[in-house]
Amino acid sequence: MFPPRPTELLHLLLKSEIAAGDFVIDATAGNGHDTAFLAKVAGETGKVLAIDVQAQAIESTAARLESEGLRDRVKLHHGCHTNLADFAGGKSPTAIIFNLGYLPGGDHGVITRTENTLQALEAASEILRPAGILAVICYPGHDGGGEEAAAVEDFIASLATHRTARYGMLAAEKPAPFLLLSRKSG
Amino acid sequence: MFPPRPTELLHLLLKSEIAAGDFVIDATAGNGHDTAFLAKVAGETGKVLAIDVQAQAIESTAARLESEGLRDRVKLHHGCHTNLADFAGGKSPTAIIFNLGYLPGGDHGVITRTENTLQALEAASEILRPAGILAVICYPGHDGGGEEAAAVEDFIASLATHRTARYGMLAAEKPAPFLLLSRKSG
Repeated sequence: MFPPRPTELLHLLLKSEIAAGDFVIDATAGNGHDTAFLAKVAGETGKVLAIDVQAQAIESTAARLESEGLRDRVKLHHGCHTNLADFAGGKSPTAIIFNLGYLPGGDHGVITRTENTLQALEAASEILRPAGILAVICYPGHDGGGEEAAAVEDFIASLATHRTARYGMLAAEKPAPFLLLSRKSG
Repeated sequence: MFPPRPTELLHLLLKSEIAAGDFVIDATAGNGHDTAFLAKVAGETGKVLAIDVQAQAIESTAARLESEGLRDRVKLHHGCHTNLADFAGGKSPTAIIFNLGYLPGGDHGVITRTENTLQALEAASEILRPAGILAVICYPGHDGGGEEAAAVEDFIASLATHRTARYGMLAAEKPAPFLLLSRKSG
């Protein structure tokens, strides 16, 4: 699609930034769409860590990976992404993706909470390897999403060690999802 | 570079939207960087119309095209882009690019003027073929650029027949250049 959706642009740009064999993290596995993408670009020798606080998300991500023959490349963690540094076990990823908001087809009452999100983003920035990429998709159109999206944008923009771009649609009827693309200094 | 500069993202995305043989317009030839890009993607059978109000820009664009073996694919027009519909001679382009602000290395006193720019953008939207692409790079950091950039963003966002995205850097010391990517309805 042109202009691309935020997720489409993210995948297009990450494709040439993640190399075979890399370690990468999907901090919000959701339905596994981004996890499967990361597993493909990290390749057979790559390692993906995918985290989600909802058991249903972990299950549907596992099912998707299984059906695409990618299950072996991914370690799934049912838990809160605020603990992502522990889950990563001291390893420094090349890229970390956050796709905020609720699980498509899941319980819309379970949305990411701003405080947890900022804590997880801070941990993500710390464990990223030099020149690593932090990418966040925000949904200001969801209930409570506007406040979270603004807080996330401010937080990422304030990271002095990162260079950040923002991509989103203009003139949508409700606030449209947007993408934050950030690279840590090398 | 990651995140890409607005011009880099524009070229990356247009590459898969412009086909060999297409007719495209560079409404602000400048030093010919975008013109040469368009001439490459439109291919040997493509036609590029490049416009600039400064003779120096037309000369340096001609020189660049010559040195890259692309001169035959491009019709250069020394004139104001408000007349782009006349220059296009009734043909409907696949894409029209505007790169606003002053000519690199040229006379910084000659900047694009908001009123002319909006008139040229309106003409561009009208002559674009259905599903055609209008792309604008704005420079709010230049003298008078902030006002022009805001007016251009409002104008493009108000085009009911277009779907538009905005891409730019966050937290730069001065307002950073940004890209507007717009597709006319098909």
